[in-house]
Amino acid sequence: MKRRDFIQKAGVGSLAAGGTLLAPNVANAGAQFKWKMVTAWPKNFPGLGTNANLLAKLITEMSGGRIKVKVYGAKELVPAFEVFDAVSSGVAEMGHSGAYYWKGKAPATQFFSAVPFGLTAQEMNAWLYYGGGMELWRELYKPFGIIPTATGNSGVQMAGWFNREIKSIDDLKGLKMRIPGLGGEVLRRAGGTTVDMPGGELFTSLQSGALDATEWVGPYNDLAFGFHKVAKYYYYPGWHEPGSTMEALINEKAFNALPKDLQVIVLTACKAANMDMISEYTARNNQALDTLINKHKVKVLPLPDDVLKTLKQLSEEVVLELAAKDALSKKVYESVTQFRTQVTKWGSISEQAFLRARSL
Amino acid sequence: MKRRDFIQKAGVGSLAAGGTLLAPNVANAGAQFKWKMVTAWPKNFPGLGTNANLLAKLITEMSGGRIKVKVYGAKELVPAFEVFDAVSSGVAEMGHSGAYYWKGKAPATQFFSAVPFGLTAQEMNAWLYYGGGMELWRELYKPFGIIPTATGNSGVQMAGWFNREIKSIDDLKGLKMRIPGLGGEVLRRAGGTTVDMPGGELFTSLQSGALDATEWVGPYNDLAFGFHKVAKYYYYPGWHEPGSTMEALINEKAFNALPKDLQVIVLTACKAANMDMISEYTARNNQALDTLINKHKVKVLPLPDDVLKTLKQLSEEVVLELAAKDALSKKVYESVTQFRTQVTKWGSISEQAFLRARSL
Repeated sequence: MKRRDFIQKAGVGSLAAGGTLLAPNVANAGAQFKWKMVTAWPKNFPGLGTNANLLAKLITEMSGGRIKVKVYGAKELVPAFEVFDAVSSGVAEMGHSGAYYWKGKAPATQFFSAVPFGLTAQEMNAWLYYGGGMELWRELYKPFGIIPTATGNSGVQMAGWFNREIKSIDDLKGLKMRIPGLGGEVLRRAGGTTVDMPGGELFTSLQSGALDATEWVGPYNDLAFGFHKVAKYYYYPGWHEPGSTMEALINEKAFNALPKDLQVIVLTACKAANMDMISEYTARNNQALDTLINKHKVKVLPLPDDVLKTLKQLSEEVVLELAAKDALSKKVYESVTQFRTQVTKWGSISEQAFLRARSL
Repeated sequence: MKRRDFIQKAGVGSLAAGGTLLAPNVANAGAQFKWKMVTAWPKNFPGLGTNANLLAKLITEMSGGRIKVKVYGAKELVPAFEVFDAVSSGVAEMGHSGAYYWKGKAPATQFFSAVPFGLTAQEMNAWLYYGGGMELWRELYKPFGIIPTATGNSGVQMAGWFNREIKSIDDLKGLKMRIPGLGGEVLRRAGGTTVDMPGGELFTSLQSGALDATEWVGPYNDLAFGFHKVAKYYYYPGWHEPGSTMEALINEKAFNALPKDLQVIVLTACKAANMDMISEYTARNNQALDTLINKHKVKVLPLPDDVLKTLKQLSEEVVLELAAKDALSKKVYESVTQFRTQVTKWGSISEQAFLRARSL
């Protein structure tokens, strides 16, 4: 890094804050930043909330305390669905959430979290970092003064918990299910009814019959909620969220006020946290599934092929309509769709072919 | 971070090197470290060499130049196969290589790069970060004064380029193939002959008939080598290397001499680089495969199921023999095998089931 970059960005702030003599290459070393990170998750929620904690810890530690990041659970500073506005307005310097929550701001946000029959975690990250996805995401959030990046991925989720057996597409008719986002729209087109409900109410709603089904995340989070006690069948695969990306939102002005080393620290911490979350979910889902099957004797069933085929057709309709909403949605749709076509081919002879070979 | 930690680790070195007045939380900010990173790859080699460059850049930038990392290609400072010794002895502070190169130092190293029919990239990282793998890896390298960590993954490789069609296991008999490591041992047991040969000689050897087949990496690297000009068939899946991990080697004394913020920077940079490489390979393989198939009309063929089944049986023999070599090999084998059993079950209802559903 050039010393000049430091000096330019540091301004007088560093001297005022630290009061130190500046050694070569450590200009602005004394500048102190206190950042708030608002999140869309309950504080310390396994996988999601803990990833926000990790991200804050990495930034604080790597910066030697020059940025101190404090994490707020949903409702502690702002409610979950106000995270975007809080970062946009500068109430908080960072946010940790999922992009599909902001479809009211811009429809295309949904392409950056989860798309039914879309990309897996590995493919999504390939598209974001090396396929043009990140540039489109930044373009989308630019008018709001927010720099987005990926900070985690849940991997393939489960189709959900059902109290009705799904043998054909007709079994989805009239089904009352908690399933948000594009997946919810698909279910409605298949004849189901979707119910909006916070996670904490799902257990009793399944128990009382107010819900016939719910999706949540996967074995690790689902086991903790105890859904196996109130639902009969656990269906796979999670066609609606094949690799849900969690986003870090960074207030652009706050980011630009950092010296370059701290900017690189913030973005690199997000990338490392992104690697961390998918690793955590893969390991913990794998252990929790073992517990669900062997200890709790849960019936884990595949959705029938013709159900999946119909859901896929309906998903394509829904996503095409999303693409038609505005010019940027169309641009993102075309980028991600071309990428998916190619990566599906590559996946079929790499991950998919290998996983099949290993199970022969 | 506690100020005391800084002070303890910083010692006098920071004052001597920087000559600065120390502000709270920036103790040792002035200390300067010059690190050499030796690699097992040609300088700037796509995917591998470029990942070493990225890693060095991240560390240098995040530290504001307090650690300056200089990357050396193979043979620039030491030959590829002396990277481990160079880091162990302190000739270099860091290395970038693959653990299976060091089987002569300890047989169990092979578990930390690629095992035939073993873990995919996502599963490998889950095992390393959340399944006990990293702790075992550190135990294995401890006697050599090296701290290892993951810094990249190639994803599922291809089975390779062949000038002979593989219709049954008998077609592997007498096959002269370049395939190193445990995969090579498996091929020998299937009746093939393995040839040790640097990458640069593979093209002419395939052309002259000195080789009947070679594996390398995948479409991205293979296209650059031009193998499609001299080999008839491109086989999948890469049963022998389903998710090859690249390692960062860190000299323990050099690491311990760093203040805590720089230690976290070094390890976090490796984790971010790990996310970066698999993303790069996924995106670039996907584009290169498109070029190979549509522009160069390459015949991409699956290995027949009975061939894969036999290779899998032979692989299990080979890996079991490796596990029997010493106590630590046995411990690593047991850990990774238990993890694989569980994650195969989870994979079958998550990644594998979803990829299948998407292609219905």
